[in-house]
Amino acid sequence: MASQTSPKFQGWLGKSPEAVNGKMEWGEYEPKKWSEDDVDIEISHCGICGSDIHVMKSGWLPTPYPCVVGHEIVGKAVRVGKNVKHVQVGDRVGVGAQARTCQQSTCPDCSNGLESYCHNELTNTYGSIYPNGEGKSYGGYADYNRTNGHFVFRIPDGLDSASAAPMMCAGITVYSPLKENGCGPGKTVGVVGVGGLGHFAILFAKALGADRVVGISRKADKREDALKLGADEYVATDEDKDWVAKHSRSLDIIICTVSSEKMPLNGYMSLLRTKGTLVQVGAPDGGILPPVSAFALIPSGTRIAGSHTGAPWEIREMLQLAADKNIKAWVVERPLKEANQAIVDFEDGKARYRYVLVNENYGKH
Amino acid sequence: MASQTSPKFQGWLGKSPEAVNGKMEWGEYEPKKWSEDDVDIEISHCGICGSDIHVMKSGWLPTPYPCVVGHEIVGKAVRVGKNVKHVQVGDRVGVGAQARTCQQSTCPDCSNGLESYCHNELTNTYGSIYPNGEGKSYGGYADYNRTNGHFVFRIPDGLDSASAAPMMCAGITVYSPLKENGCGPGKTVGVVGVGGLGHFAILFAKALGADRVVGISRKADKREDALKLGADEYVATDEDKDWVAKHSRSLDIIICTVSSEKMPLNGYMSLLRTKGTLVQVGAPDGGILPPVSAFALIPSGTRIAGSHTGAPWEIREMLQLAADKNIKAWVVERPLKEANQAIVDFEDGKARYRYVLVNENYGKH
Repeated sequence: MASQTSPKFQGWLGKSPEAVNGKMEWGEYEPKKWSEDDVDIEISHCGICGSDIHVMKSGWLPTPYPCVVGHEIVGKAVRVGKNVKHVQVGDRVGVGAQARTCQQSTCPDCSNGLESYCHNELTNTYGSIYPNGEGKSYGGYADYNRTNGHFVFRIPDGLDSASAAPMMCAGITVYSPLKENGCGPGKTVGVVGVGGLGHFAILFAKALGADRVVGISRKADKREDALKLGADEYVATDEDKDWVAKHSRSLDIIICTVSSEKMPLNGYMSLLRTKGTLVQVGAPDGGILPPVSAFALIPSGTRIAGSHTGAPWEIREMLQLAADKNIKAWVVERPLKEANQAIVDFEDGKARYRYVLVNENYGKH
Repeated sequence: MASQTSPKFQGWLGKSPEAVNGKMEWGEYEPKKWSEDDVDIEISHCGICGSDIHVMKSGWLPTPYPCVVGHEIVGKAVRVGKNVKHVQVGDRVGVGAQARTCQQSTCPDCSNGLESYCHNELTNTYGSIYPNGEGKSYGGYADYNRTNGHFVFRIPDGLDSASAAPMMCAGITVYSPLKENGCGPGKTVGVVGVGGLGHFAILFAKALGADRVVGISRKADKREDALKLGADEYVATDEDKDWVAKHSRSLDIIICTVSSEKMPLNGYMSLLRTKGTLVQVGAPDGGILPPVSAFALIPSGTRIAGSHTGAPWEIREMLQLAADKNIKAWVVERPLKEANQAIVDFEDGKARYRYVLVNENYGKH
């Protein structure tokens, strides 16, 4: 029931890197200190993202345990700070990977539609420590979430919650660089890795009107799915020895969702047309990408870019496009109470193409 | 004396990779077959470029010996094909790194002001083999050069030949990416490596109106020169342990003229502001750049780009800017007859900042 006092927060706590092996523990925790800029959300859906695994095992940086991961959150606003004007109690809302930035007019990023690059006070939806003793951020493998209203988005009618949830991170992570690099009519797009992010990249590249979308993966087993998702062509790099020569200089944009030190990055680069861009959106543990040849960059003036989630305006734009174009994510729903098994299955690569935890307690509080 | 028949071509022939050790041999050779699209140039000046060394020793690809290197050519047009309208016999002209492209309206590069990326028929000024039995391309360590008129440029009055010569390759190689990435008021520019290319990058970044230009080199010994060239600041990465933290996120554009597998590329990347671009313009032998971390790309949405010389329209623009702003390259003139010693000295890093071979035979033919 919607109320203007806060509920007790309970969720799946990771208490050490071991949690990643299906050893999260359900328990209560203290969310960040309430402020009138915040929204409390009763969670109905939360996608499982690769970042959840990296953070749970301290793969990128040391994680301040205990943590509750999950940053593909959809649910119902149950408490709305009085400074938050665009959300009302009862609204269906979503939260992605970011929980707060500095939002200062003097910040070159926040003042310029680039909030996801704010370095003054970038707070992730989970695993961050707020300044001024406000506590820590906790994510969406839980009953409730508390996030700054600036990063809480209304979900448009007509977009189902199970599709919307993984769009909040996986979706926007590929939508933002597609838009930034001009995806649309006249452009051809490659998508490396047909997984959680890659399947959204195919869906959005087509929705944005790209002339041609090519799924690229090591093995042939994703071919049928890639084509069903809307790809015009599929390249299995392990199975076609001539893939580089055959597809050389044919793509304007490549979204690389694979994060492996062993991927054939120079091969991917050679698929780009003049001034084409490969956008790397995945980071391996440790972060190091395969060495790049200057000859993969100079003779075609190509670029390797990074991209980090998306700004609030881009998230709104993406959600509206998804509603307008009736985009359905390919998700498998898993009960929140089976979250431990779900993350083990996720790590085994079984998700086709995103697991979404569904909160069996939703609406029962 | 200007004439409409072609002279005999003589120059410094590299006959094997050994030539790089000061063992070029002066001799006669057959230039490409004359066509009415060509211009013959009596060479007065030719800069010594790092590419000359790479090609002479087959450092990038096997070189079709004998070769005559040199692609920073200035001289006088002595024979002009009747299809060439913008050059007359007697004009002072220059030639850079490119000798011909396909120039077809169906070429996505040639038709779009991106000639330097044409992959249909990109012919370098030296070391390329023309199609259809037309012969090979020979460069500027010589008395004469023959190049397609599309890649022969009039040198504006007021720009001295010794300055103009190294602009034809070193200059345009840094001018093009500066312009492409928006160098001008409001932008800050880093220049890695204060050498032949780097000194032009400082000169042009200032001429284009950048707010701030920072010279970046391993040692402190180039500080004074960098500041004299117009840099506002200088960073010696070997001597200031805190250089990364101190200059973090302060630059919009970095022109990286260093081509070493050992350079601190991830450190350079961390100097970029959000959406900033590092442009790699140098290629080490073998081509492999140091491995990049995904975390050098993703959190600031930065880019690593390649850039390859510049198109004819950009070369004209650069030469005019240089004339208008009275830009003087820092060159040391060396007699063409001492070319062997000059390349040895160049390899020893003695050029401050470009050697220009001056043809003692100029005007004597």
